[in-house]
Amino acid sequence: MIAKVIEYIDAHRNEYVDRLKDFLRIKSISTDPAVKAETRKAGEWVLKLLKDAGLKTEMIETPGHPSVFAHADGGKGPTVLVYGHYDVQPTGDESLWKSPPFEPTVRDGSLFARGSADDKGQAACHLFAIEAWMKTAGKLPGPVKVLIEGEEEISSPNLETVIRSNREKLACDYIVLSDTSKFNKTIPAITYGTKGLVYKEITLYGPKQDLHSGSFGGTVTNPGNALAHIIASMKDPVTNRVLIPGFYDDVLEMDDDEKGKMLGLPFDELKFREDVGVNMTNGEHGYNTVERKWVRPTLDVNGILCGFTGQGGSTIIPSKAMAKVSMRLVPNMNPRKIYQAFDETVHLLAPQGVRIEIKTFGCAAPYMCPLSSPAMKAAAAAIEAGYGVAPAFIREGGSLPILPMFKEVLGAESIMMGFCDPNCNAHGPNEFFDLDDLHKGIRSAAQFLEKMAKG
Amino acid sequence: MIAKVIEYIDAHRNEYVDRLKDFLRIKSISTDPAVKAETRKAGEWVLKLLKDAGLKTEMIETPGHPSVFAHADGGKGPTVLVYGHYDVQPTGDESLWKSPPFEPTVRDGSLFARGSADDKGQAACHLFAIEAWMKTAGKLPGPVKVLIEGEEEISSPNLETVIRSNREKLACDYIVLSDTSKFNKTIPAITYGTKGLVYKEITLYGPKQDLHSGSFGGTVTNPGNALAHIIASMKDPVTNRVLIPGFYDDVLEMDDDEKGKMLGLPFDELKFREDVGVNMTNGEHGYNTVERKWVRPTLDVNGILCGFTGQGGSTIIPSKAMAKVSMRLVPNMNPRKIYQAFDETVHLLAPQGVRIEIKTFGCAAPYMCPLSSPAMKAAAAAIEAGYGVAPAFIREGGSLPILPMFKEVLGAESIMMGFCDPNCNAHGPNEFFDLDDLHKGIRSAAQFLEKMAKG
Repeated sequence: MIAKVIEYIDAHRNEYVDRLKDFLRIKSISTDPAVKAETRKAGEWVLKLLKDAGLKTEMIETPGHPSVFAHADGGKGPTVLVYGHYDVQPTGDESLWKSPPFEPTVRDGSLFARGSADDKGQAACHLFAIEAWMKTAGKLPGPVKVLIEGEEEISSPNLETVIRSNREKLACDYIVLSDTSKFNKTIPAITYGTKGLVYKEITLYGPKQDLHSGSFGGTVTNPGNALAHIIASMKDPVTNRVLIPGFYDDVLEMDDDEKGKMLGLPFDELKFREDVGVNMTNGEHGYNTVERKWVRPTLDVNGILCGFTGQGGSTIIPSKAMAKVSMRLVPNMNPRKIYQAFDETVHLLAPQGVRIEIKTFGCAAPYMCPLSSPAMKAAAAAIEAGYGVAPAFIREGGSLPILPMFKEVLGAESIMMGFCDPNCNAHGPNEFFDLDDLHKGIRSAAQFLEKMAKG
Repeated sequence: MIAKVIEYIDAHRNEYVDRLKDFLRIKSISTDPAVKAETRKAGEWVLKLLKDAGLKTEMIETPGHPSVFAHADGGKGPTVLVYGHYDVQPTGDESLWKSPPFEPTVRDGSLFARGSADDKGQAACHLFAIEAWMKTAGKLPGPVKVLIEGEEEISSPNLETVIRSNREKLACDYIVLSDTSKFNKTIPAITYGTKGLVYKEITLYGPKQDLHSGSFGGTVTNPGNALAHIIASMKDPVTNRVLIPGFYDDVLEMDDDEKGKMLGLPFDELKFREDVGVNMTNGEHGYNTVERKWVRPTLDVNGILCGFTGQGGSTIIPSKAMAKVSMRLVPNMNPRKIYQAFDETVHLLAPQGVRIEIKTFGCAAPYMCPLSSPAMKAAAAAIEAGYGVAPAFIREGGSLPILPMFKEVLGAESIMMGFCDPNCNAHGPNEFFDLDDLHKGIRSAAQFLEKMAKG
């Protein structure tokens, strides 16, 4: 049967491009209240596709943008929940786009539009694959559910409620999503680990107003100097190790097998430096760039503001100083524990004479799917069949807080199949999705359903 | 003769207030090109007063605002050069003023107006004293010169050229100025030392653009963390000593006599804390607040800017980070040496992977007049006679770069007689000069000329 499905997909290759263009024309910017009705339309586009394909569909309303839910009871085997999102990032400065962000345009074999990769194009791979199964076989090879939300780009504020209050409906054995990228231009990837995040804002308050640095310098604690001391004391300047007590205690070290595979990937260090624009990489001693990116926890300043920052010199002692500092956590670190340890460390390090205020803007757990999971093997075989290239097993430095939440509430592991280019400009201008990746992504998604059902 | 001069001054007490009001009505904001012609008028007001009093006067033109020069050959004795400035600071937010800044208004015995203390009112004490001598004695007790400039509030960009190209004309034995304050509300002061200043801006450049902290965190040097490390490493967090090599090498320690006098001053630590709005003072170990303010060199952050500083969290690695850091120097520190040591320290401390840019926005020498100077004794006696209260001998944490320049070019020490309240709101809203201080300041200035001539 799978041969017929693939044949159908190959025959409709150009049609998929046109239909994805329709999807991409909808301005579903979830962060922009001015396009709220338009955003919903993208959800309706997804719902119609699944309904027309023969699935039972339902719009799950939320106080924000709704989630599309669909399901089809096909045969035996584990239940797969396809997750994705129909909302997109804002366009940013439109003058930086070579073609308008909501007028999908093909150039050099790639489709340029906001959302083409993140996530409309990649989610569509699964939607078109489901449709292809229904059109050819009249049913899906195994039980499949679909959840496409509309608030991923605004941190899914209502998704947890949706999932907790629809726990039975969403019950599944595995989740599959395509919201990560390939390893490089030619090698597709399965991402099996994401980092957690703890994001903090520290403000130190000193004198009641900015003071003349001549008349008062040296007599009171300068919040700017105090802040620099706190930040600097959190990291060893030589080894770049984070010095927060207990920070590394729960870090899961790689076993030899995982390490061997990871270090065997054809990572291009020189291209990485060139892309980032640095002469050298730098990080925790004892690890290379790939390990630092994927398997080591980090602490970084995201922003600092204090005192006079205009042109020239103004001789003041600032009355306050603010820094945003975030930490990326790896499996098995506990974000609540790191959250606490961070706050305690700030209080411990702060010199006398300043008042401390700490705000938290993020506290998400890391996630890792066991490499030994049967779904992981099915995904690898599916991609190899769909692409003709075996996927790389990679991790990701970014955070996907929904995955540990899926795991906790639904008890299911998530399989991340990456079809888009790692330099696809998601969130930036000129986002694109290679048409070949669209085609191979649909094929791989169709193969995945087959291989999951076969077990 | 001095008795008659003082009698004359006492008799004209109210008239001086009215005439000072005329001076204060002139909007001589040197930083504002829109009032350039008006600014000159304040210089012309000074010139007319001195000309009418019988001195030989001259306007010394500059590319900016002119300087008023006047002189009178009176008897023998050392030549005194009276220095002051007729320009004022901008008003800032005028809604914060209880009466308009250029409509001089008397409330509770004080004259409120921009420039009332800094420096029109204090400079006028000397001008009225010279006039009183001329009106009563027909001549000055000793040779007197006057230099009132119009660019002090914009860092006197043309004063050095004026002085260097008029070295013969300005030749003098001592300079007297009133551009500093009393010790407190009741005790007038002679300031015998000011601090120098080296003001730096450090910018660290890392990746070519802001990076996603998930995908790139931990792999490249974060300019924000690097900057915090550099700033923090410049000061010991426990002793608050500056760690730049050689920083304290040339610091002139106080002798027991000076130290005894300084620590004997009735400094109100609790009031200081309250004024500044801190629960505790803090600074270099082994010194108290007065010493930290006046006789110890300092290093302070004046401002920091890097990365995302808006509301909430944005997970970026900043591409660059900037800090403004300034140091106040005490006698005998050499600003050029500190300037160099600072730059070398930044380069030494910077982690690999960032490019450093350092700008300099100030490099001024400290100044100190020997307490044993005969002019210092004459000033103390003059103030005691004029005020009925002996002055405190104090130092100042701020910088007056013109004083070391006077010393270098004219070879003359400067005597700083402070008549205004230390909380007179110079540079802020509701600047004021106590009418009693105006009167006693004129008396003291008249006494000073007498005592200098007598030797």
